Amino acid sequence: MISSLNDIAQHVNGVVIGDAATAITSISSIDDITPGSLVFADTPEYFKRAEDSAAAAIMTKNAPDNCSKPVLQVQNPMRAFIALIQHFHPQPQATVGIHPTAVIAADVILGQNVFIGPYVVIEEGSVIGDYCVLKSHIHIGRQVNLGNHTTVHAHVTIYDHCHIGSQVTIHASTVIGSDGFGYTFDEGKHQKIPHVGNVVVHDDVEIGANTAIDRATMGSTVIGQGTKIDNLVQVAHSVKLGKHNILCGFTGIAGSTQTGNNVIFAANCGISDHVRIDDGVILGARSGVPPHKHLLSGNIYIGSPARPKDLAIKQELGAARIPAMRKTIKNLTEQVAVLTKKMTQLETEQS
Amino acid sequence: MISSLNDIAQHVNGVVIGDAATAITSISSIDDITPGSLVFADTPEYFKRAEDSAAAAIMTKNAPDNCSKPVLQVQNPMRAFIALIQHFHPQPQATVGIHPTAVIAADVILGQNVFIGPYVVIEEGSVIGDYCVLKSHIHIGRQVNLGNHTTVHAHVTIYDHCHIGSQVTIHASTVIGSDGFGYTFDEGKHQKIPHVGNVVVHDDVEIGANTAIDRATMGSTVIGQGTKIDNLVQVAHSVKLGKHNILCGFTGIAGSTQTGNNVIFAANCGISDHVRIDDGVILGARSGVPPHKHLLSGNIYIGSPARPKDLAIKQELGAARIPAMRKTIKNLTEQVAVLTKKMTQLETEQS
Amino acid sequence: MISSLNDIAQHVNGVVIGDAATAITSISSIDDITPGSLVFADTPEYFKRAEDSAAAAIMTKNAPDNCSKPVLQVQNPMRAFIALIQHFHPQPQATVGIHPTAVIAADVILGQNVFIGPYVVIEEGSVIGDYCVLKSHIHIGRQVNLGNHTTVHAHVTIYDHCHIGSQVTIHASTVIGSDGFGYTFDEGKHQKIPHVGNVVVHDDVEIGANTAIDRATMGSTVIGQGTKIDNLVQVAHSVKLGKHNILCGFTGIAGSTQTGNNVIFAANCGISDHVRIDDGVILGARSGVPPHKHLLSGNIYIGSPARPKDLAIKQELGAARIPAMRKTIKNLTEQVAVLTKKMTQLETEQS
Repeated sequence: MISSLNDIAQHVNGVVIGDAATAITSISSIDDITPGSLVFADTPEYFKRAEDSAAAAIMTKNAPDNCSKPVLQVQNPMRAFIALIQHFHPQPQATVGIHPTAVIAADVILGQNVFIGPYVVIEEGSVIGDYCVLKSHIHIGRQVNLGNHTTVHAHVTIYDHCHIGSQVTIHASTVIGSDGFGYTFDEGKHQKIPHVGNVVVHDDVEIGANTAIDRATMGSTVIGQGTKIDNLVQVAHSVKLGKHNILCGFTGIAGSTQTGNNVIFAANCGISDHVRIDDGVILGARSGVPPHKHLLSGNIYIGSPARPKDLAIKQELGAARIPAMRKTIKNLTEQVAVLTKKMTQLETEQS
Repeated sequence: MISSLNDIAQHVNGVVIGDAATAITSISSIDDITPGSLVFADTPEYFKRAEDSAAAAIMTKNAPDNCSKPVLQVQNPMRAFIALIQHFHPQPQATVGIHPTAVIAADVILGQNVFIGPYVVIEEGSVIGDYCVLKSHIHIGRQVNLGNHTTVHAHVTIYDHCHIGSQVTIHASTVIGSDGFGYTFDEGKHQKIPHVGNVVVHDDVEIGANTAIDRATMGSTVIGQGTKIDNLVQVAHSVKLGKHNILCGFTGIAGSTQTGNNVIFAANCGISDHVRIDDGVILGARSGVPPHKHLLSGNIYIGSPARPKDLAIKQELGAARIPAMRKTIKNLTEQVAVLTKKMTQLETEQS
Repeated sequence: MISSLNDIAQHVNGVVIGDAATAITSISSIDDITPGSLVFADTPEYFKRAEDSAAAAIMTKNAPDNCSKPVLQVQNPMRAFIALIQHFHPQPQATVGIHPTAVIAADVILGQNVFIGPYVVIEEGSVIGDYCVLKSHIHIGRQVNLGNHTTVHAHVTIYDHCHIGSQVTIHASTVIGSDGFGYTFDEGKHQKIPHVGNVVVHDDVEIGANTAIDRATMGSTVIGQGTKIDNLVQVAHSVKLGKHNILCGFTGIAGSTQTGNNVIFAANCGISDHVRIDDGVILGARSGVPPHKHLLSGNIYIGSPARPKDLAIKQELGAARIPAMRKTIKNLTEQVAVLTKKMTQLETEQS
């Protein structure tokens, strides 16, 4: 597939600076520049790197003067980048059909144009929406609902009674609806608290690989619309996540915690139980939040225990100042000793 | 299903304060109160929330005076709560039978009344106890033993030679018996140390989803009776966990570490190799324990490196005092400068 | 299997001190000593423990004088230990053959002497090298390549277009090639960045259980030759790991980070995106590295944010000194108060 820079500019509604007839063989990212490609650069440093590379042209928002390569200037480079990936790498149309090895209970309702791959198991009472793609080796329990246009990758397990929305993607080996981790110590052992709730995943959610979302004790664990969850994340029983949250890898959210919309969890955040997190809160990597805390809208929290960023940085800088403080204290101690000695002499002389 | 509060009181051996004829349609937890339900409240704050809700009645240990709703007073509310979940949400009887797609080696011994679901694979020499439930897509290697009444969820892998006790539950995609992570750097590369041991899981253990328990180099990795393990936990080669331990999510325990009974690991604890942890130790969330340490019975440890709680809090408070200390040091410096100047004047005058 | 200590000495090229005719029934590790075994002890403390045990003899590098048991002295005890595990625990020859339940696309190319277990799925255009072992329930997507002598355990998923080298082992439920976690917030929601790259795993790599390695946005996520990855690790999109790296459990490496050769990540390291790590760097457990950092060859880094070890320890010791500093400041404050008072008296007297 070969296009000219001019063709591409029309496709993404951009402006060419330089030779619009430049041939473009592919699109590439700044970390992996293919010769002859259009490369996307969003910082001055990356723009420089792009200029020094074998790329044919550079896509950016604001081109600097005197570029050594043709530039495609666009209003929203990420949006243009996505459009161009789709243009240069069109995804194969999903196959439709039901593999003969799939084990589907007699009363399961399958939507239109679904793909059910080999060794998929769907148990009694479940409903699979239109255009769903179920890759292979998937376990879907009883009374499970999947909306439309939802894709489930290999080895995913969805326990009984869970509801998954439309346009949802679940990556391989992820588990939805396992029992929450709840016990009470009684008569010398940990007695299991039965978990009779479920998990509800709303529309437009994506969930990474090897993640675990536990069912509620009673009621539902809820993943709000548009929320994106990375690999190796744990969402515990009865958690309720709002819309458009981001949960990066190794983040764990303990029981009954609730979040608002547009909350961001950087990697390896640990949130204890019964925490309330308001809209738009950002938690830095490795933040730890103690139980029953309430994090307020519009704040960035970092550290463990998590504190507002300014405070946390002040305290960390404080720690870095200890060597200088020790030196000052030593000087003061010496000066005070000298003064005390002199004072004693003066007093002796006076008396 | 509708009961009166009086019926329920008899079922859980409790005392009604208020109208014993109150109709109860369900049981609910404080985070998810269903109208008309009996809600369980174990703190004054939660009791208040229950009173303000659409619940029909409140279950608690010690009812305050003048409640606005009927109260069911019970000696052990958690025990009563469990009994009532079981009453209102009876679990369906496990199906018995062997799915025709299961691939079971000829010499495998199956107990009475087992359920073997679709696409389960059981290899040579393995033994499955009575009343075991094996959901679907399970890989059970050679010479594996399962006790009685053990439930294995979808996509679990149990490697060769591992022993699983009775009344054990293993959640989806968990791996038991993978090789330990052991290499020795020799001749320019990491040479693998063969792992010829196994994993032994004792009775009444529950293991969450996407957890990994490695086989011992030699001998056994051991999970003691009644121990409960959350999702996304790692137990490394040759670890020996005592009875009734609790391991919360993202906890990792490195090679050859040993624990006593009733040890609690909060979330994301990291325990290095060859650590000894005595009975009843509690490790706070994100505790980190260096290699070869010995944690003493009856202590709570927090922080990384983990220290007894009192010491850790003292040191943390110390850090919080740095800004005040800096201010004091600045004042002292100024005062000493003034004193030194005055002293010089006095000395000059005296001479 | 019974051997004499003399037989074993010849097998591993060692020297016997004491009775060379001692019968040896097995080999054991210091944490799990079997009576009558040859036990491996590599520290004085472990040697003492071995002497006090029911072991028949002790293998070590440098025997102390006057041992109470026969000793097998060897130049490289770990190498000898590996040879002896292989001797006492010979692994069963891998079975060859294709299980009738495997679903293999018509154009897949299978090498010589492969084992394809039950319920393995291999999609269009994939190539499986000679002597590969694919246990059971494996999903191999389209256009996937596996080299020779590669072993894949149960429930592994390898997404489309990924390349796996020779002599590679992948443990159960690990996922290779899931989409990277990349979105751009636009028009009120997180828009997915398509991931059209792949994962390339070079020769002699071992990957633990329940690990996730994401495909690159474009180009490849690369795992260098001889690198060993533990359970529950995340390697994000477009990461490039060098040769012979070690990644311990719960380590997460974010997008586009690059490492040199022989880099070691202890457990639960968190490396942000676009970090450069030079050859031979060691990262202590729980190190956290901020984005775009460059870690220099030959250094040990610890802490979060990760600093060179000496600096980190100095800063930590600083924090431990706060109580003493506070005491000194209090003393100084009292002394300065006394001095100031006396100075005022003197000044009054002088005037």
